[in-house]
Amino acid sequence: MPVNLSAPDPAALHAVPGIRIGVAEAGVRKANRKDLTVVLIDEGAAVGGVFTQNRFCAAPVQVCREHLARDVGVRAMLINTGNANAGTGEDGLARTRATCIALARHLNLAPEQILPFSTGVIMEPLPIDRIEAGLPAALADASPNHWGRAAEGIMTTDTVPKAFSRQVQIDGATVTISGISKGAGMIRPNMATMLGFMGTDAKIDPSLIQPLAKALADASFNRVTIDGDTSTNDSFVVIATQKASHATITSLESAAGQALLRAMQDVARQLAQAIVRDGEGATKFITIRVEGGRDEAECRQVAYAVAHSPLVKTAFYASDPNLGRILAAVGYAGIADLDQTGIDLFLDDVHVAVKGGRNPSYREEDGQRVMKQSEITVRIVLGRGAAADTVWTCDLSHDYVSINADYRS
Amino acid sequence: MPVNLSAPDPAALHAVPGIRIGVAEAGVRKANRKDLTVVLIDEGAAVGGVFTQNRFCAAPVQVCREHLARDVGVRAMLINTGNANAGTGEDGLARTRATCIALARHLNLAPEQILPFSTGVIMEPLPIDRIEAGLPAALADASPNHWGRAAEGIMTTDTVPKAFSRQVQIDGATVTISGISKGAGMIRPNMATMLGFMGTDAKIDPSLIQPLAKALADASFNRVTIDGDTSTNDSFVVIATQKASHATITSLESAAGQALLRAMQDVARQLAQAIVRDGEGATKFITIRVEGGRDEAECRQVAYAVAHSPLVKTAFYASDPNLGRILAAVGYAGIADLDQTGIDLFLDDVHVAVKGGRNPSYREEDGQRVMKQSEITVRIVLGRGAAADTVWTCDLSHDYVSINADYRS
Repeated sequence: MPVNLSAPDPAALHAVPGIRIGVAEAGVRKANRKDLTVVLIDEGAAVGGVFTQNRFCAAPVQVCREHLARDVGVRAMLINTGNANAGTGEDGLARTRATCIALARHLNLAPEQILPFSTGVIMEPLPIDRIEAGLPAALADASPNHWGRAAEGIMTTDTVPKAFSRQVQIDGATVTISGISKGAGMIRPNMATMLGFMGTDAKIDPSLIQPLAKALADASFNRVTIDGDTSTNDSFVVIATQKASHATITSLESAAGQALLRAMQDVARQLAQAIVRDGEGATKFITIRVEGGRDEAECRQVAYAVAHSPLVKTAFYASDPNLGRILAAVGYAGIADLDQTGIDLFLDDVHVAVKGGRNPSYREEDGQRVMKQSEITVRIVLGRGAAADTVWTCDLSHDYVSINADYRS
Repeated sequence: MPVNLSAPDPAALHAVPGIRIGVAEAGVRKANRKDLTVVLIDEGAAVGGVFTQNRFCAAPVQVCREHLARDVGVRAMLINTGNANAGTGEDGLARTRATCIALARHLNLAPEQILPFSTGVIMEPLPIDRIEAGLPAALADASPNHWGRAAEGIMTTDTVPKAFSRQVQIDGATVTISGISKGAGMIRPNMATMLGFMGTDAKIDPSLIQPLAKALADASFNRVTIDGDTSTNDSFVVIATQKASHATITSLESAAGQALLRAMQDVARQLAQAIVRDGEGATKFITIRVEGGRDEAECRQVAYAVAHSPLVKTAFYASDPNLGRILAAVGYAGIADLDQTGIDLFLDDVHVAVKGGRNPSYREEDGQRVMKQSEITVRIVLGRGAAADTVWTCDLSHDYVSINADYRS
């Protein structure tokens, strides 16, 4: 059961002019699953992406980077689940290229105009015959109104599809933003998540698409973690189809650029948080905010240490205010000159620790009350500067172990 | 059920001349538990220790460091379970000092001659009245033959006591080494574990005791991890009572020094591995050896990334050769210029991956056979140098979650 997250209402998902989506059941790993998605993009769109920093990055990630670098105009994306095509060496690269060639033939494009994405089991050969056989059905399914279907088409261990949409006024024009994402394990994105896609019809100078993708990832996908396992396939792609009627945005610092950025960040954050809410076995959604640091980087370092601690995560699962575990994780986060006597800890509004020790007025029942909630904010004040940063995570439950002990069976 | 580890045979635990141990039930947290241990050390012993690098180190760790720095001759150690006295601020320091003063009075010593240790729940006030009330019984129990009782006296979530002993001939004299340790969660020692104590009657120059303690910890406790959570209370202390009849060892590089070091490392490694074998919920003992690195530090970095991956650990629990998860962890270990096409992976004798891809001759049933064993060696060859290092860990099971979700209740 995801934490305060339900499947999207199809009526609330707006089509993005210039983008059509088709989904098919190709039987990549299992039969009767939507496992193949094509995203068709009109000519003239600006497309940017950020990808996993895992050195064992998957073949499709390597090919995406190559194709984006060729800069010949991305016109389609091809996404399969069931197989990650990672840890597959040269053979894996050849298989990914073969699927791009196959889709390019259908669409009369160059293979370099296709971005490929794979997610699923690692170190198994990608079944290109099944993917190629599924392409006609996926292409026949293409429609501007299939964002919800696409969110289903990219699911693996996710329990609900993740799609969000909003519209924003820019210079009197209505601009649409829609996005989809998937989790639900091997989630500690480093530059991107596995997988996130956003489309907008905003008109922006093509030179802005890559900084925009990075700014969006940094404020959303790069702030979530489920198990600390950075995936081999993390990919986040932003498409701006340029179909809206406002004047071209030439700077993200302009009023129009800021309006677009804020609206897109809003959707990106919802997509990223949805991955945590539907994290494998998650029963709680935890916001970890670290304040009073010297810089944002050390705030993140502390927040991730807390977010990754199995002891902290199991305490949340048990609703047990065993909050010393949080202090212990702060202590081993790697801040060499951290002074424990400067640290305060809050659980929502409850002031748990003062200057590194238990707050004399803290009562166990107050901690217990907050720990029982499904949404909890942990606030750690380091008392050594003015910087702050936030990370979102979930608890560690029996179901996480069950899901990952059974995943391939 | 610990992995291939049973309770020590009391007859196999040798007394160390110059050390007596007494244990009592003080009711620190729960009644009817051996939870208070005193170790009495004859005058003239060399005592060294290494302690947690956690910045939130516990009050007893801070006091141990102070007392060792005073260098007035350690004559006793006082160890309680049930309460870690960590995250307790100034009040916690005062309580630890009070227990040292109480024991010093009984023994007619200075408080600075006592080393205090606490383990258990974090951020609760140490019940000094109960500890002080328990001291007479612990002192009355003192005997050279109580290493086994001491191993019981320091247990928390451990399921078996951990004690090892051996004798070694140095210059024709018999030298005895005995040690005890405890786990079983919040285990990723950084300089030491929570808790390890070793005693020997070897005669060594006092200036060697601290380098000896560090060398022993580095080869044993600093190579194990259960959950990646570095404890607030990790402490490892080595006592050399100087009672043996060989000539004083003045260098660890000498033949006698090397003989002592090897024998003590052997015991230290057994103590450290015993903690992993009895790790919370452990069903498997995993050796992770990384070879072909540029230096030992990067080998350890990779080994710990694999050892801490919840996905790798749950795959071991499930006996599922989902070995791509190991490659993914290698990839995100933080070696910025790691080339995946140089990496080989072995599971015991099974060659799983060649040059970053699946070994064409690898068969799933071979991986499955090894994964079903209770002892597994993962060997990762980075192909970029001649350095190697080894880390020991366990799997992540349902029981780990149960134990840590229920610990305080």
